[in-house]
Amino acid sequence: MVPGMRTIDLSASTGPIGLDKIGLRRPLLDSSLLEETVKNILEEVKTRGDEAVRKFTLQFDKAAITELQVSANEIGQAQNNIGADLKQAIAAAKKNIEKFHASQLNAEKKVETVSGIECWRKSVPIEKVGLYIPGGTAPLFSTVLMLGIPAKIAGCSEIILCSPPGTDGNLDAAILYTAELVGITKIFRIGGVQAIGAMAYGTTSIPKVHKIFGPGNQYVTCAKQLVQKQGIAIDLPAGPSEVAIYADETAIPAFVAADLLSQAEHGVDSQVILVTHQSEAANAVMTELVRQLADLPRKNVAARALENSWIILVKNENHAVTLLNDYAPEHLILACAEADRVAERIVNAGSVFVGHYSPESAGDYASGTNHTLPTNGFAKAFSGVSTDSFVKKITFQKLTREGLANIGKTVEVMAEAEGLRAHALAVSVRMSN
Amino acid sequence: MVPGMRTIDLSASTGPIGLDKIGLRRPLLDSSLLEETVKNILEEVKTRGDEAVRKFTLQFDKAAITELQVSANEIGQAQNNIGADLKQAIAAAKKNIEKFHASQLNAEKKVETVSGIECWRKSVPIEKVGLYIPGGTAPLFSTVLMLGIPAKIAGCSEIILCSPPGTDGNLDAAILYTAELVGITKIFRIGGVQAIGAMAYGTTSIPKVHKIFGPGNQYVTCAKQLVQKQGIAIDLPAGPSEVAIYADETAIPAFVAADLLSQAEHGVDSQVILVTHQSEAANAVMTELVRQLADLPRKNVAARALENSWIILVKNENHAVTLLNDYAPEHLILACAEADRVAERIVNAGSVFVGHYSPESAGDYASGTNHTLPTNGFAKAFSGVSTDSFVKKITFQKLTREGLANIGKTVEVMAEAEGLRAHALAVSVRMSN
Repeated sequence: MVPGMRTIDLSASTGPIGLDKIGLRRPLLDSSLLEETVKNILEEVKTRGDEAVRKFTLQFDKAAITELQVSANEIGQAQNNIGADLKQAIAAAKKNIEKFHASQLNAEKKVETVSGIECWRKSVPIEKVGLYIPGGTAPLFSTVLMLGIPAKIAGCSEIILCSPPGTDGNLDAAILYTAELVGITKIFRIGGVQAIGAMAYGTTSIPKVHKIFGPGNQYVTCAKQLVQKQGIAIDLPAGPSEVAIYADETAIPAFVAADLLSQAEHGVDSQVILVTHQSEAANAVMTELVRQLADLPRKNVAARALENSWIILVKNENHAVTLLNDYAPEHLILACAEADRVAERIVNAGSVFVGHYSPESAGDYASGTNHTLPTNGFAKAFSGVSTDSFVKKITFQKLTREGLANIGKTVEVMAEAEGLRAHALAVSVRMSN
Repeated sequence: MVPGMRTIDLSASTGPIGLDKIGLRRPLLDSSLLEETVKNILEEVKTRGDEAVRKFTLQFDKAAITELQVSANEIGQAQNNIGADLKQAIAAAKKNIEKFHASQLNAEKKVETVSGIECWRKSVPIEKVGLYIPGGTAPLFSTVLMLGIPAKIAGCSEIILCSPPGTDGNLDAAILYTAELVGITKIFRIGGVQAIGAMAYGTTSIPKVHKIFGPGNQYVTCAKQLVQKQGIAIDLPAGPSEVAIYADETAIPAFVAADLLSQAEHGVDSQVILVTHQSEAANAVMTELVRQLADLPRKNVAARALENSWIILVKNENHAVTLLNDYAPEHLILACAEADRVAERIVNAGSVFVGHYSPESAGDYASGTNHTLPTNGFAKAFSGVSTDSFVKKITFQKLTREGLANIGKTVEVMAEAEGLRAHALAVSVRMSN
């Protein structure tokens, strides 16, 4: 129906059909081909620090940098290059994101598991975190909000931000402005593998952090995977961005088409999926999609993304839900009647947009939810970024002498059965005291 | 004081001193040396499935296996080989672990971020999880409780368990008995890299899972790191187990010595750290430690672990707390007066044992807390296993037409500034409808 987009008709199938059976794959790049290159850059950053960072910044970003850190003066100047409309929009988005992410802080109660034994968990901020914000064709200042706000709410004491400079060595004003607004002032004009390496190992100028967040190209993604193997936490495994839309006869074709395109314009490796049991609805959406595509500034990007994309005709809602849970989309839009009821049936997705007036772009920018989400089916096991991502939970326990007596025999018997005598001894010396 | 254990006296230092400055390192193995071997085994399991699993089980475990899955009959027989005392102990531990892990399930409220916009998160069980239980010298049935109970409480629908067989092809009865008690019945007699590969990729006999849990030797650890790079979630990065104890003049030397030894007996690569500002206390602990060590069945293991271990004399509580947070111990025992107050100052640790009657072995087995914890300083960014580890959180949002109107301008302005016109269009087509 749309050039490049594949259609598959499963509507005559009597049972749900697995994605592997229909040959639906993610447009995934094999990062193992880059691994050697990325390893070498990381190694050089680890051993030669700032000097290596400057060298690679010149090599890859064509920028000759003396001061890696952006000065307070430069950050302060950024506001002069941002229009009043945009300032107001960023402030409005910030307020909503803060409200939703603040609601994620939950104090847990102490639990008396046995008389004399209290156990509890405490959320404690990860002290040092690094945020990576890609440069390139679009300055993603919205991602500064999505990572910076929960980091601040969690209470991380050191938050640094790295972003690749233009050839003039400068960062985008909207990124600097948004960072300052959120309260991030340690900003470095470095990108790519060298930025990930600098944050993972630390250099003279750039502090080592405990966890690295943020999207990036395939080199950045590969670098994050490699430092993760060395015990540096990362936010999420990465893959190309994607949306799946479930549309029924109540769906409005122009809405669905705009939602498909707003995902498709992200990048040539995006994937969009339309699932419906209404072939008329699919046809109407495709007519709209062709019409809307023609006017888009990024129509070439979107058109290439559509080549990775699928229209899937299913028999009924049950088959649609099974297929969607199998796909585990990063974004899932439920453009159907009784969207609330269908939402209850979703078990694998990053973020779900319920009903006709909930476009993905609302969550991408301003509704309050986070837009850093699991792609590539990772939603089967991973959650999107939230305030949780910036804390770890420490377990505590306090036993009285009586409490230990209440479980003493249990510990001793189990420890002996596992062949660990000293574990038993740690109880018995206390009991005989 | 104890053969092999290093003592360092920082008590004259006027400020806290970083661990890197005193040369304290974890006894960590470099898994990159094994990587090629592990990669090849994984690859063969991926391509040749059960056949490869059987081949490696014969090669590494010296067991010729036909049926990879343990039969219901074998599982049922296990109870005949477990004493009544042990059954009672396992039941008691199970009850406490269930109570604490059930308390970790929290329903979150819907948040109205703006009039007409509701955002919320829902915890959803990870459908398929795999638990790895090491074999070898000690059958770790306690780990079956620590992984199986939160998996069940979370509501994971498919829970499988892999453990390496003895040369006769059988699994330890205590492992089978505990698994059945927890409600896990899909048990496979396979271990090592081949088990991790089978769970990551799936074979004819062994289901593919979305997340893999459990401790293991350096080959298993390396395999988990490699499949993680391919997007399979894992519980935690692994390192040797460790305890740090902060002791003051109120500490009872026999208690502290037993706690140090109960960690040291785990493995030759364990590390134990005693931090105190009382050199008399340190001396008394060491005298006790030498005495208790002599009687341990695993004294050779413990003695070798003590060679990785340190006694650190500090000036005062402040220096101790700084050093402990820098070390970020897996287990931290506060054997001091005002342990509650000191506990409040801990920001990096896996699990904290507060006061003189809270030995690590209580948490290892029966108090209710989980014993799968971040080692190797990973507690700076990672939490131990909990019910959270078996769920992911899906974000939902529902906007009314009015709700979308309330943020429409914000979305449009931000999308245009990021060069993403279709994102803006997804709002404007809805507003003009």
